[in-house]
Amino acid sequence: MSKIALAIHGGAGTILRSTMTPELEREYRAGLETALNTGWQILESGGSALDAVEQTVCSLEDFHLFNAGRGSVFTHDGKNEMDASIMDGRTLDAGAIAFVRNVKNPITLARLVMEKTPHILLAADGANQFAKEMAVDFAPDEYFFTEHRWQQLLKAREEGIVQLDHAAEEQESVEDAEQKRNPKSKIQNPKSLGTVGAVACDAVGNLAAATSTGGMTNKKFGRVGDTALIGAGTYAENATCAVSCTGHGEFFMMGVTAYDVAARMKYRGIDLSTAAKQAIEHLTDIGGEGGFIAVDGSGNVVLPFNSDGMYRGHRTADSSEIEIYR
Amino acid sequence: MSKIALAIHGGAGTILRSTMTPELEREYRAGLETALNTGWQILESGGSALDAVEQTVCSLEDFHLFNAGRGSVFTHDGKNEMDASIMDGRTLDAGAIAFVRNVKNPITLARLVMEKTPHILLAADGANQFAKEMAVDFAPDEYFFTEHRWQQLLKAREEGIVQLDHAAEEQESVEDAEQKRNPKSKIQNPKSLGTVGAVACDAVGNLAAATSTGGMTNKKFGRVGDTALIGAGTYAENATCAVSCTGHGEFFMMGVTAYDVAARMKYRGIDLSTAAKQAIEHLTDIGGEGGFIAVDGSGNVVLPFNSDGMYRGHRTADSSEIEIYR
Repeated sequence: MSKIALAIHGGAGTILRSTMTPELEREYRAGLETALNTGWQILESGGSALDAVEQTVCSLEDFHLFNAGRGSVFTHDGKNEMDASIMDGRTLDAGAIAFVRNVKNPITLARLVMEKTPHILLAADGANQFAKEMAVDFAPDEYFFTEHRWQQLLKAREEGIVQLDHAAEEQESVEDAEQKRNPKSKIQNPKSLGTVGAVACDAVGNLAAATSTGGMTNKKFGRVGDTALIGAGTYAENATCAVSCTGHGEFFMMGVTAYDVAARMKYRGIDLSTAAKQAIEHLTDIGGEGGFIAVDGSGNVVLPFNSDGMYRGHRTADSSEIEIYR
Repeated sequence: MSKIALAIHGGAGTILRSTMTPELEREYRAGLETALNTGWQILESGGSALDAVEQTVCSLEDFHLFNAGRGSVFTHDGKNEMDASIMDGRTLDAGAIAFVRNVKNPITLARLVMEKTPHILLAADGANQFAKEMAVDFAPDEYFFTEHRWQQLLKAREEGIVQLDHAAEEQESVEDAEQKRNPKSKIQNPKSLGTVGAVACDAVGNLAAATSTGGMTNKKFGRVGDTALIGAGTYAENATCAVSCTGHGEFFMMGVTAYDVAARMKYRGIDLSTAAKQAIEHLTDIGGEGGFIAVDGSGNVVLPFNSDGMYRGHRTADSSEIEIYR
């Protein structure tokens, strides 16, 4: 008999108590709480893990402070381009989109890719065309405009840097990075890494995972991060676990982190908590920063990270918690 | 002491002796032979696995019969859009591009993403802009025009189908696929699945993998397949193996197949040949068709597939072989 369980994240990075106001912290906590409630109600009333993660991520996308949906950061051109992916642990089916614009809930579009096409990942113009054909909810540019994101872009443009999310200082410029060949150079003090995600186990033990992001401030060259990629940012498999990652995407891509957690469980025969610990150690070894949330078919939940903080929360029959700092 | 080894593929699918002419078979074999020679000369003269796989894939991209580079299939709009990825097993660094146009050798552009940017995957307009900034070799539309690919598109358009590569009959229409929810529906008799790839072990035991494709005939909606994705279509890690996949991409994405081979070796402590066998069995279990080539740090090579054929070849100190059929 499975126990229902839900975990969420709103991004990982340098999130310090010292730079947070009580008002802002309350706002973040309220955003996480609303999302948890959304998914929990679905699971409690016998809904599927897939519906729970989709609706939970919709709630996080609708919240203005996280870097996904409404709160997405701006690209170099002052646009909002969003990535998302979703995976059904029961069937291994998956859907994902990259670079969609003006789509209110990118995670819903990712689910439509899964259910309405023979494909898994649609990107750029084609993904936007698909969104139109599916008649999903669109929102005008103003909906996605948030003053603090705009200020971030202006600052980033001025400094010629690419930011992984909100508050970023001492960021490496792309030019500096281009001088280096070592993969470690791919990360240089990303101060906050923005993504949202949810994983769930439903009453019949089905697992699902969903992740969504607005990408990087001042992003150029059509960079796709781990959020759109099954195996890297998102993975779900009933026999092992459902995982949603957040952090410096390139390292989650090199380490195929989401699937790596599942692979450790499957092939080493270890439990979720041990696999999660090992996967974070490996992420640290290869120079990556961030974290993930994961759930197994018995409703066990883990929320590990190696950064200073991660916006996160979980609910099970036994516990319910919302946390920000280490 | 490592033994140098090289393996290549030019796509998997329904490749039957009965539908092949002796002239065409000679031409395919010559294309594979030229590519093998290219990479082998690099490895024999002490060159790196990374240089070997890049140059070998360039040779395959330059060959007009494989679905990559020059021989790429046409999208619905009559364009050639190419994907490629490369990974360095020594550093785990990787580079990939999706939807580039008029780039003579997409694999070289993927390597530039790895070496000149802090990113791993660049897609669409941004990737094309990056190609211009890097001043890679471009080729006009005529270079990529091959009569048999054009006829494939006209036929596919007429029949309203998406083809995974050259000769495809009894193909499922996108409309049919859209009616189905089971992930198994993502595959319906793809008759031939086109990609090219190379894996190598160099004299000091470094591994590398590279994969390149022109995608699917009559492709719409900006579908990204496994070829552009680290973990799905390409993976390399000195401690385990280097892998390049070919086949129905969506299943390699669901199964994270390239990394799955490495994960089985790492976490189960089994050898390459056993891991490869298990990975193909798993691919078959989830409904996927295709194959992969892989090499480990001792220079062992495997070329497993579950389709009727796979254009393939390998060379080691002890053996050299080019094969097409089962």
